[in-house]
Amino acid sequence: MSREAAFIAGLRQLASHPAARNLDDDCAVLEVGGETLILTHDMLVEGTHYLPGADMADVAWKLVATNLSDLAAKGAEPLGVLLGHMLGDNDAAFLAGLAEVLAHYNVPLLGGDTVSGTGPRAHGLTAIGRATYTPVPTRSGAQNGDGLWITGPVGDAMLGFEALRDGTSADHTAYSRPMALLAQGQALAPLVTAMMDVSDGLLLDAFRLAEASGVSIAIESEAVPVADVARRLDCLRWGDDYQLLFTLPPRCRLAISATRIGTVEARGFAPLFLDGEPLVNAEGLGFQHG
Amino acid sequence: MSREAAFIAGLRQLASHPAARNLDDDCAVLEVGGETLILTHDMLVEGTHYLPGADMADVAWKLVATNLSDLAAKGAEPLGVLLGHMLGDNDAAFLAGLAEVLAHYNVPLLGGDTVSGTGPRAHGLTAIGRATYTPVPTRSGAQNGDGLWITGPVGDAMLGFEALRDGTSADHTAYSRPMALLAQGQALAPLVTAMMDVSDGLLLDAFRLAEASGVSIAIESEAVPVADVARRLDCLRWGDDYQLLFTLPPRCRLAISATRIGTVEARGFAPLFLDGEPLVNAEGLGFQHG
Repeated sequence: MSREAAFIAGLRQLASHPAARNLDDDCAVLEVGGETLILTHDMLVEGTHYLPGADMADVAWKLVATNLSDLAAKGAEPLGVLLGHMLGDNDAAFLAGLAEVLAHYNVPLLGGDTVSGTGPRAHGLTAIGRATYTPVPTRSGAQNGDGLWITGPVGDAMLGFEALRDGTSADHTAYSRPMALLAQGQALAPLVTAMMDVSDGLLLDAFRLAEASGVSIAIESEAVPVADVARRLDCLRWGDDYQLLFTLPPRCRLAISATRIGTVEARGFAPLFLDGEPLVNAEGLGFQHG
Repeated sequence: MSREAAFIAGLRQLASHPAARNLDDDCAVLEVGGETLILTHDMLVEGTHYLPGADMADVAWKLVATNLSDLAAKGAEPLGVLLGHMLGDNDAAFLAGLAEVLAHYNVPLLGGDTVSGTGPRAHGLTAIGRATYTPVPTRSGAQNGDGLWITGPVGDAMLGFEALRDGTSADHTAYSRPMALLAQGQALAPLVTAMMDVSDGLLLDAFRLAEASGVSIAIESEAVPVADVARRLDCLRWGDDYQLLFTLPPRCRLAISATRIGTVEARGFAPLFLDGEPLVNAEGLGFQHG
């Protein structure tokens, strides 16, 4: 086990409080005064999570939207955010992007901290939400016989990243300004057996959902809506699209638009099958957080 | 106005939601399901907030304790923390210090995020607490005629910092492992007219309390308990002691140990008077966050 893996395992052990479902599950669930609160904290680091020279308005948008996406996967309604911000270049653009994204989602900035630093910048955001439905959806409830569904296409963020990286004129909005599917998450929460947002790639996130639920998941690659059919497998491995991935009992009706892309089966040889091929190891399936 | 000041002013304007009392007031107050939640987020950056080569167990302790101190100043009982952690050297020591401080305060780790990064490290912590008394104490309630009080001496952290910096054998616990005065904060919350923790130096923090309350505060320097009487003024200017500073109506009885160090007066020529001398400008009074 690497030192980093040992550290994360140690954190997970510390987070053994019943309120702390799992450090990997992106969100903590806290019962307070008859309400169920959902809490999530993510960091963006220059050079790791965004390109040096990136538009800081986009960085602010992404910092907020990715945390709100964690709330969306829990069917939560956001109550506010706290910002931890390392001061630096183009903070006026950061502020403008922050104002835009908070107005778009009608979420208040509750407070936070600004610090000085040298070297690559780090930005942290904590989002607090209120569950609109309990029990709150987790990754671990998928049942044999459920269908596997996704709210929309994957791969748009990949194309957007490439457009930015290569300086082409193609649209990079899907990468720069991802959307948190809050309304969809709230509509789905009462129906799903398991739900998560696709942040690290469809294959890797489906693998994790299967592992957490103790099931196997069979995905039909042709059924997955993708941004570029000529690069279907790339689209399935790329992250950053923030679609909601969920499992649904058979014959359950949906009030929102979504696509069935696979089936939940009893746990077999591998957690994940792609067109019948077993995928045993998470390595290489998508983006692994470092 | 500097670019940094403009950014912070912009953040403050964004944080105009009634739940967001003030980015400077360290904490946000959020009413949820009949409970009053207190939320705070602070960052520690290597080179800015701790010396490179510092014991990472102490860094973890301080990260948690300083955020819990913000809760203490609100009379809140902690419900949990979320950690944003940039991975790096001596993470095993960080984890050990984190386990120690969470056990000491009996506070659960609810979740968080670990990220890779290069260059100086940044660590963020969000602490969530439940108000034990409402209205929650603020900085802005000090009244003409109140006494100004402090829970204990200032300057111990300064001596600890110097011991560490100079490599002497003197005790540096007060600097490395500050205490969050949670029990004192809860005992004081129903009694005080204003309260805050002394994180940036007694003079600077008293100046801020006076400004927020629209009063003048007169401090008698001889009355202030200090760690080193030969360096009384240094002790009054140094931060990091995390004592609670509060104002109390006359003839109010205290169930905890504290020292009266001054008087609240109607707003006069300056927000702060030290032994009768007016202090008009916050610059140079203590540690200003960058």
